[in-house]
Amino acid sequence: MQEIEVIRIKEDVQLKNPVFIVGLPGVGHVGKLVAEHLVEELNAEKILEIYSHHFPPQVFVDENSEIHLVKNEMYVCRTEKHDILALIGDHQSSSTEGHYKLCTLYLDLAEEFGVQRIYTLGGFPTGQLTFSDEVLGAVNNKEMVEELKQHGVIFKENEPGGGIVGASGLLLGLSKFRDLDAACLMGLTSGYLVDPKSAQSLLKVISQIFEIDIDVGPLEERAKEMEKIVARLKEVEQQQQGTMPDISPTKDDDLRYIG
Amino acid sequence: MQEIEVIRIKEDVQLKNPVFIVGLPGVGHVGKLVAEHLVEELNAEKILEIYSHHFPPQVFVDENSEIHLVKNEMYVCRTEKHDILALIGDHQSSSTEGHYKLCTLYLDLAEEFGVQRIYTLGGFPTGQLTFSDEVLGAVNNKEMVEELKQHGVIFKENEPGGGIVGASGLLLGLSKFRDLDAACLMGLTSGYLVDPKSAQSLLKVISQIFEIDIDVGPLEERAKEMEKIVARLKEVEQQQQGTMPDISPTKDDDLRYIG
Amino acid sequence: MQEIEVIRIKEDVQLKNPVFIVGLPGVGHVGKLVAEHLVEELNAEKILEIYSHHFPPQVFVDENSEIHLVKNEMYVCRTEKHDILALIGDHQSSSTEGHYKLCTLYLDLAEEFGVQRIYTLGGFPTGQLTFSDEVLGAVNNKEMVEELKQHGVIFKENEPGGGIVGASGLLLGLSKFRDLDAACLMGLTSGYLVDPKSAQSLLKVISQIFEIDIDVGPLEERAKEMEKIVARLKEVEQQQQGTMPDISPTKDDDLRYIG
Amino acid sequence: MQEIEVIRIKEDVQLKNPVFIVGLPGVGHVGKLVAEHLVEELNAEKILEIYSHHFPPQVFVDENSEIHLVKNEMYVCRTEKHDILALIGDHQSSSTEGHYKLCTLYLDLAEEFGVQRIYTLGGFPTGQLTFSDEVLGAVNNKEMVEELKQHGVIFKENEPGGGIVGASGLLLGLSKFRDLDAACLMGLTSGYLVDPKSAQSLLKVISQIFEIDIDVGPLEERAKEMEKIVARLKEVEQQQQGTMPDISPTKDDDLRYIG
Repeated sequence: MQEIEVIRIKEDVQLKNPVFIVGLPGVGHVGKLVAEHLVEELNAEKILEIYSHHFPPQVFVDENSEIHLVKNEMYVCRTEKHDILALIGDHQSSSTEGHYKLCTLYLDLAEEFGVQRIYTLGGFPTGQLTFSDEVLGAVNNKEMVEELKQHGVIFKENEPGGGIVGASGLLLGLSKFRDLDAACLMGLTSGYLVDPKSAQSLLKVISQIFEIDIDVGPLEERAKEMEKIVARLKEVEQQQQGTMPDISPTKDDDLRYIG
Repeated sequence: MQEIEVIRIKEDVQLKNPVFIVGLPGVGHVGKLVAEHLVEELNAEKILEIYSHHFPPQVFVDENSEIHLVKNEMYVCRTEKHDILALIGDHQSSSTEGHYKLCTLYLDLAEEFGVQRIYTLGGFPTGQLTFSDEVLGAVNNKEMVEELKQHGVIFKENEPGGGIVGASGLLLGLSKFRDLDAACLMGLTSGYLVDPKSAQSLLKVISQIFEIDIDVGPLEERAKEMEKIVARLKEVEQQQQGTMPDISPTKDDDLRYIG
Repeated sequence: MQEIEVIRIKEDVQLKNPVFIVGLPGVGHVGKLVAEHLVEELNAEKILEIYSHHFPPQVFVDENSEIHLVKNEMYVCRTEKHDILALIGDHQSSSTEGHYKLCTLYLDLAEEFGVQRIYTLGGFPTGQLTFSDEVLGAVNNKEMVEELKQHGVIFKENEPGGGIVGASGLLLGLSKFRDLDAACLMGLTSGYLVDPKSAQSLLKVISQIFEIDIDVGPLEERAKEMEKIVARLKEVEQQQQGTMPDISPTKDDDLRYIG
Repeated sequence: MQEIEVIRIKEDVQLKNPVFIVGLPGVGHVGKLVAEHLVEELNAEKILEIYSHHFPPQVFVDENSEIHLVKNEMYVCRTEKHDILALIGDHQSSSTEGHYKLCTLYLDLAEEFGVQRIYTLGGFPTGQLTFSDEVLGAVNNKEMVEELKQHGVIFKENEPGGGIVGASGLLLGLSKFRDLDAACLMGLTSGYLVDPKSAQSLLKVISQIFEIDIDVGPLEERAKEMEKIVARLKEVEQQQQGTMPDISPTKDDDLRYIG
């Protein structure tokens, strides 16, 4: 096995008005939930698999007790307006170098398939259990901002303040060198839990951008389950606030150390 | 010294109906205990040693105060039905890349010796001190499931939920690409202690699969020692339960963050 | 993208009496604040950008919600006496190997531009919230000491005791092999906060060395903000001293473990 | 700069009955203290310096505020019976791979200089503040045991139980493949402090082995300072024992998890 290995499952893939969406594991798994939902609901076809030394040495077990090695996969979802090339997977790279190499590969593949625009999907951690249906955006070409605002994406100066870490950000950075327009769309999420509710918000925006109609049923169900957990977490939070004195003098200051 | 170095101790090794078992250090050292027990009880012959930059820079000291460098070793155990190629060792790789490279080497060697089936041995951490003699299985080809069930292996949908990390899992994943059947057999264990008792359970299954008769005496003794320790740990656990209030509201929920 | 990539923005750059200053992120961001202040106030011209696998896989977002990939940049500031080649950036290398490779590149570039002297700028952590306007120096050629003392730089035997870690130190070490004189100038700082006040002290020294006149206004403002925070931190520190008994028996001993 | 760079300071070095001693930083800095003491007291001559990407990116500052890059150095100490090739340095490798590569280089150099025996010097952490003047040994050829016992080295079955980590151990392991006899000599030490007292014990053994007469004065002084600190630490330890109840049920059991 090579450092990075691409296994083609379908040859001669031709795409119409192709866009590339990326939903890998990350904050609240928001991006992953949305991309996997699209793949499932749009009866997407798998076209290739990616294996790499830069993924953790791990296998996952399915319902038949059969394993598969950690991988990333590309699917094609055919819709009326666009063919969507979707990247999903078990893990992001576990090394810095691997992040750069894998994202370079993803972009090589995207260009091979004629992709004209990239959307990386993720979560933006608020640290708050209170729900917000906002979807925050960042772009690698500011001309995209106005258009995305019309689909409900929020833009805030210099936000996220700590930048965007991992494939979602790196793909924007690297595609800039190729003059490929790319946006990162982030559902607001607590950052503590897998968040199907935030995924619903993000899915709504995505559906509007791609002019598709997606059943959110399965996400809805998981979202309800999560709401119960959040409710209980809030209760505990409140109880603890009674007993744990807050000695922090810097509550309203930004003492963030930009290390 | 190269990145990975194989030192052949015996040339021209011919094996009859060869199977490959792998028992490297891991959860509860269950796999290691079983494989080393087989090597000892079956008077196995060492055929090669493996050294690598991917192992920790460490030596171990024997009863004569003589050291040996961290290594993995392959032995051959001759039994009536099968010649067992056994991989044991001091450590697994300490790098992600090394895991992939070393497992690729192990499979190259397994194929060189004509191996038709692989069993990786390990432990499955329950987080509980209560003993269970179950042996959980996962396979890289679901056709193996029925046969293994007959030897007492338990299969559970999507278990282990977090996948299998390290050589035990990776070997299953990588051998799938070579059309080599492989199963991972995991003795249930607390995850806190070296577990000769779980090793006994696993050994029983292995003996049945290979149709061999193994003396479990030495494991038995170590298991008894461990039982005493567990009994005491349980006592303390109980005492602490009295004094430490459980504030967790999520005890029966799966809030596991699939990060 | 290569392991390290240099993108030239301006070709055929000619420099007059060039000196090289380096202000990358580090303790209190003192060096970064000073170098970026110089770049801004002296209307410096960007001549190249550096990208690398050794930087974190991250992008930063600007006021237009447009991202840029983590990078280092070189600017030229034209002053009466010297053309200053300034290196600033988002991050230092995140790997040991990368530190050596990137610093080697920085020195190759410095030599290409005919640089005769190097100043790396940083902070020296005191662990104390009390302000000191001292600037501590270390050199790679002791003949520089007297001259720097005349500009107000303090030198202390064997200080910093733990050495200088990262690009600021490494550049001194590596340039020694090229017979390039280099000094590291460190503003004293608590080590807990971004420190524009320490940056002002360091800027004063730098201005004197380069015989330039720099407006410290913007730093002044940020320094005032910081002073308020420090005042509050000190208050808390005092309150805590009342309630938390000091059991440390080694307060006045140097038990530092030189590991 | 290459991955590893050797700078020869003296060419054509001829050694008489050469032995190789290695005293790099480690547990209690015992080995480092002894080797540096020998280099100083025997007016050793520096013959080469080693720099590497595998050392931390760091410089140290001397009494003139002049820096030097992290390095390892080889010296030759001429004594009546042996010429001692001594390796000392600021750091060991900070990567696993670097440990293997650097130790391979050290052995290549040792062989180049005709070394017939290797002594690596280190500390053995007891976790106890009580002093012991024992020096524990481990060898890569058990025929060395008897001879070393005569010089006061203690040997204990399978000790150290956790093996020997780092250059001290690895050099024994790797030199075995070259049929080079090597011993690791470890002064017993708490593991919490730099230990000049343990260094004295080790130095005594070394002096006897090499039939040399060394002034221990400077170490003596530092040892006295340390004794004062230890006395105070013991006091505190005693005070704390009064207030902190020991709930550990496993005090006399070996529950060490051989992970």
